[in-house]
Amino acid sequence: MPGNSFGDAFRITTFGESHGPGVGVIIDGCPPRLPLAVEEIQRELDRRRPGQSAITTQRREADQVEILSGMHEGLTLGTPLAMLVRNQDMRSGDYEEMKTKFRPSHADYTYKAKYGIRAWQGGGRASARETIGRVAAGVVARKVLAGVDVVAWVERVADIEAAVDATKVTRDAVDANIARCPDAPTAEKMIARIDEARKAGDSLGGVVAAVARGVPAGLGEPVFDKLEADLAKAMLSLPAAKGFEIGSGFGGTFLTGSQHNDPFYDGGGRVRTRSNRSGGVQGGISNGEDITVRVAFKPTATILKEQETVDEDGHDTTIKGRGRHDPCVLPRAIPIVEAMLALVLADHFIRQRGQCGV
Amino acid sequence: MPGNSFGDAFRITTFGESHGPGVGVIIDGCPPRLPLAVEEIQRELDRRRPGQSAITTQRREADQVEILSGMHEGLTLGTPLAMLVRNQDMRSGDYEEMKTKFRPSHADYTYKAKYGIRAWQGGGRASARETIGRVAAGVVARKVLAGVDVVAWVERVADIEAAVDATKVTRDAVDANIARCPDAPTAEKMIARIDEARKAGDSLGGVVAAVARGVPAGLGEPVFDKLEADLAKAMLSLPAAKGFEIGSGFGGTFLTGSQHNDPFYDGGGRVRTRSNRSGGVQGGISNGEDITVRVAFKPTATILKEQETVDEDGHDTTIKGRGRHDPCVLPRAIPIVEAMLALVLADHFIRQRGQCGV
Amino acid sequence: MPGNSFGDAFRITTFGESHGPGVGVIIDGCPPRLPLAVEEIQRELDRRRPGQSAITTQRREADQVEILSGMHEGLTLGTPLAMLVRNQDMRSGDYEEMKTKFRPSHADYTYKAKYGIRAWQGGGRASARETIGRVAAGVVARKVLAGVDVVAWVERVADIEAAVDATKVTRDAVDANIARCPDAPTAEKMIARIDEARKAGDSLGGVVAAVARGVPAGLGEPVFDKLEADLAKAMLSLPAAKGFEIGSGFGGTFLTGSQHNDPFYDGGGRVRTRSNRSGGVQGGISNGEDITVRVAFKPTATILKEQETVDEDGHDTTIKGRGRHDPCVLPRAIPIVEAMLALVLADHFIRQRGQCGV
Amino acid sequence: MPGNSFGDAFRITTFGESHGPGVGVIIDGCPPRLPLAVEEIQRELDRRRPGQSAITTQRREADQVEILSGMHEGLTLGTPLAMLVRNQDMRSGDYEEMKTKFRPSHADYTYKAKYGIRAWQGGGRASARETIGRVAAGVVARKVLAGVDVVAWVERVADIEAAVDATKVTRDAVDANIARCPDAPTAEKMIARIDEARKAGDSLGGVVAAVARGVPAGLGEPVFDKLEADLAKAMLSLPAAKGFEIGSGFGGTFLTGSQHNDPFYDGGGRVRTRSNRSGGVQGGISNGEDITVRVAFKPTATILKEQETVDEDGHDTTIKGRGRHDPCVLPRAIPIVEAMLALVLADHFIRQRGQCGV
Repeated sequence: MPGNSFGDAFRITTFGESHGPGVGVIIDGCPPRLPLAVEEIQRELDRRRPGQSAITTQRREADQVEILSGMHEGLTLGTPLAMLVRNQDMRSGDYEEMKTKFRPSHADYTYKAKYGIRAWQGGGRASARETIGRVAAGVVARKVLAGVDVVAWVERVADIEAAVDATKVTRDAVDANIARCPDAPTAEKMIARIDEARKAGDSLGGVVAAVARGVPAGLGEPVFDKLEADLAKAMLSLPAAKGFEIGSGFGGTFLTGSQHNDPFYDGGGRVRTRSNRSGGVQGGISNGEDITVRVAFKPTATILKEQETVDEDGHDTTIKGRGRHDPCVLPRAIPIVEAMLALVLADHFIRQRGQCGV
Repeated sequence: MPGNSFGDAFRITTFGESHGPGVGVIIDGCPPRLPLAVEEIQRELDRRRPGQSAITTQRREADQVEILSGMHEGLTLGTPLAMLVRNQDMRSGDYEEMKTKFRPSHADYTYKAKYGIRAWQGGGRASARETIGRVAAGVVARKVLAGVDVVAWVERVADIEAAVDATKVTRDAVDANIARCPDAPTAEKMIARIDEARKAGDSLGGVVAAVARGVPAGLGEPVFDKLEADLAKAMLSLPAAKGFEIGSGFGGTFLTGSQHNDPFYDGGGRVRTRSNRSGGVQGGISNGEDITVRVAFKPTATILKEQETVDEDGHDTTIKGRGRHDPCVLPRAIPIVEAMLALVLADHFIRQRGQCGV
Repeated sequence: MPGNSFGDAFRITTFGESHGPGVGVIIDGCPPRLPLAVEEIQRELDRRRPGQSAITTQRREADQVEILSGMHEGLTLGTPLAMLVRNQDMRSGDYEEMKTKFRPSHADYTYKAKYGIRAWQGGGRASARETIGRVAAGVVARKVLAGVDVVAWVERVADIEAAVDATKVTRDAVDANIARCPDAPTAEKMIARIDEARKAGDSLGGVVAAVARGVPAGLGEPVFDKLEADLAKAMLSLPAAKGFEIGSGFGGTFLTGSQHNDPFYDGGGRVRTRSNRSGGVQGGISNGEDITVRVAFKPTATILKEQETVDEDGHDTTIKGRGRHDPCVLPRAIPIVEAMLALVLADHFIRQRGQCGV
Repeated sequence: MPGNSFGDAFRITTFGESHGPGVGVIIDGCPPRLPLAVEEIQRELDRRRPGQSAITTQRREADQVEILSGMHEGLTLGTPLAMLVRNQDMRSGDYEEMKTKFRPSHADYTYKAKYGIRAWQGGGRASARETIGRVAAGVVARKVLAGVDVVAWVERVADIEAAVDATKVTRDAVDANIARCPDAPTAEKMIARIDEARKAGDSLGGVVAAVARGVPAGLGEPVFDKLEADLAKAMLSLPAAKGFEIGSGFGGTFLTGSQHNDPFYDGGGRVRTRSNRSGGVQGGISNGEDITVRVAFKPTATILKEQETVDEDGHDTTIKGRGRHDPCVLPRAIPIVEAMLALVLADHFIRQRGQCGV
């Protein structure tokens, strides 16, 4: 019933508030004997870390991960892998006003409405620090998915849109600039626009696209745990996510069936499709083509402008964001989206092997 | 692990293939002592039923539901509610070609790839008949949600878009025409366009919008079972769904934070927001405003045109759709989207009452 | 959250009250392509059926099963297998007194306390008819467990105890008499004693033993889903079950460690143990030896004697059992215990294959 | 699917090996606003700790617990409570022989058979240190159960049996001696016998009894999640547990129905039973009487005698236990059994409130 676990056969449970002792994750159901080094986890956390570039928040969080269990001489044991990152650099002073006022479009009010109590410093459990555990777990998920490439990139910031070939894009190309957009000229424009928003104390949203290449046909469970259903849940569970598409998405609804269908053909001993508007999934099950998804992220709710709000007693007041926040979450969202994509696939890989033996 | 259940505290499990003995659902976790009549279930199934209008498939399925358990003298017992609808009007002959060929953008190939076997008649488990159980369960879910209004409507067919006020739209207005679009002039255009596609043996997609009004603040479980995450999963688990949005969705990503944030104000003893770009959910938890979602449905995969495909041996061939299919699934998708929305809310209502006692 | 499902990867959900339209089960997670005939299910239901012998209840229930889904040309599809048995021979008149009075040591009072409503005829959901779905599902579970023998038998009725060699006992030997005790002379004494109790309007309890032979090493999930933990739950979920033992059980607690430990030895390319006080499970995981369990069943609560009780208003009164009931449930419990044992093993077989790939 | 979580609405997940960095637990689903102090957790861990008396293992483990999340100013937040205990005093040298040999009746062989790898030092994940997380979580569970008393005690060691009144026994009486048997003269005999076994390098088993008083009627979910079924699973998931009884258990099977049934009577505005052979549960649901269970623990597998076994290559060899182990686990099992009992009840309390609103 509780909501802090994700996945069924490869299941993660995260914990931690932004200003408590730490955040972390338990992975249960991990296959045994996978080689895993803490450095691999750390490298991916560094991609997510605040303060890594001029266009992300200037908070500096070392985010050093410790593996607490589930390993033996460099190999996974098949038992729970627990990982912990201690919290640091906590300037609670930045948040004093949040103690009595609800920040607009944040979770301050809804946590209070739900639980009758909230950890008001820095968002508490609703902080993006929670995603540290997801990113750490995603590294392990990728180990389960031998032969699968998972790559995400920033496709659009506000109205600045990149043209990226999902069939070829590499993680190196994504990491080549701080916008994490593999289309370099567009990346420059994005960076300029984000910097502009930062200076104005405002924020921007956009779209992250992702692809998984090399996924075998047969993953996904009809009818409720369709691959696209679990992917949609995975992505909409991310802070600031407001939309999800697989394959042709909303755009495909303007086509007719004869324009939209993906014809099958003999791909040389393997069934292929000529186009991929299905996004690699048909009837909830992977068909062996690239899995392509897009996620909409709203502009960051924290802005350094005065806004109308109410206090804990429900009375009208105003609040002005302080602290060091991301003017645009998208570049830092890349490793998180990749992690969620890998987690869904690893889970379905194990489920498929369990039920169907392949 | 298996994928045929949905929900956690209010949990449904569906069963059945399109051409087997029948389809149905078990609801487990239903609160006791809710008044329920089989006629209420039947009425909603009739809204989903094929053959109900000139623009839906001309298959005639009576879809008479029987309640097998969980009731006593008109009240729910708190024990599993099982419901069964027998299959009828099965013209297997319409499907003979499907025995050896995979229909493009259907689940024929992926089921075979996953299970090594498939019920080839009419899509088997991947048939939209599976949604009968969802619609039946949705009626019960609404009983759990006293004071909540759930309404869905066709917002767009291909490029024909309606302007509908989500804060006021009624189910009667939706059912006033066969397009199930409460904007009458636009509905007429939609009907004409669907009819045109039908005559051309082609199909159309579009967008269904839905709203839940009167949802109390506090529903939704951080962090993975956010209300919008479960809604996204619910909607993407529907046949032909390719995209999901909550609140401002993809469109909101073009705004800045200062434009996008929903200011709080004192709504007279209740915290309200001036705008509702959040779509009634903040940080995964309902805030008491209307919950608004949009779902993209691709054009129906079955078209009456010759298409390139492969046979069961993977050899190139062609196939031409036959049988009686929907040129546009959207009007019949309305009760299904409403059901999924109600199911998610009922589940979270019970979970919230369990954990927080309210 | 709801309690009507069992198993994780091979998951069953049962439904139905004793005097409603019917009872049944959905199996979700069944591997595809298993050959299955309805006659195999029916044969096992016939072993459970009331009225099959002089020492069971004289109610006659045909209990004809129908498979509603999940099959295609004699093979499982991998999709949910739903099975339904219609209720018949319902003499509600036998139960009229139960409408207003709670039968001692039955579930009448507790269902009312829990739900505020109850189906008072024949026990409703608490009726042993619920186990029909378990038995039907158990047949399918055994298909998953190629090479595994599952046999249960009546080991003790009241103080009449049989000596049975668990390493060799066969189902044929068990079914050779109506007591379902493979030790024929003891069986005769059991039958006489049960008949005596029946004539006295009283009832008897006892112990059912069961063995699973041929279970591969490696099944069972530490730490909470230990094989013995899931078996204990499986057995204690049966009506009238009051105790569970694996291997040496309570008796083993009188031994010292040096007497109790099972020495390992080289069994010719396979690790074996010289004794089997572990009951085939060590640390929650099967070790390849026979899995042996014992289940205590209390004497049937329904007796044809006047007993002290209260009515629905909580006032003191008396009640005298009527109707046609089992003076001893043990012979009919045999197929049910076998089913639960097979269900647990099938579930863990699939889970092990999923996580560890073997 | 993975096996390291327990409970449904109040769900714990434990992690950690005996010789890794640490062990711990995440509690998810904890109601908000419960007052909780780390000292309360620590006090209970101290009851479980090795080295606390002359008859337990002489390993000294400080077992200092840290709460990592889920708290705010002394109150639970409703978010995951993570707790960590670092491992200390690890004499791996004691275990060197275990690297290549399987200890009889331990989990060494089965972990290897399952995972193909094992943390051979000190039992790894199969170590009783795993129960630290359970005990810590049990403290929180008791907070959920206002008005419920949970007490466990040592009822029997080998053949030395105490006579204890379950309706009155207190935790203070249990903790009054190091045998944790509230019958003082019998406790002395137990202590002497355990000491004797210790000197002989041997070990003893026995029975732990437990009671929960003040449980409201209505907890427990038919049909698979019966209260006694979940209790049986809880107890059989403990290391060294071999049997479980509720109420009259195996002993009750020697009675007739007329002797065994618990007559109801008007208890002054509350339905009561004159006897309690049901053990407080009827049809899987609590009836408001004391819940009474008994758990059989086998003699500790680690003994300081030479035993026959095999090595990792399956060849015959011998092994002699070394290290500092418990000659009898029962006194230290008391807080663990209490924890499991409280965890089951807290889970069902929340589930009942969710579904039935009370």
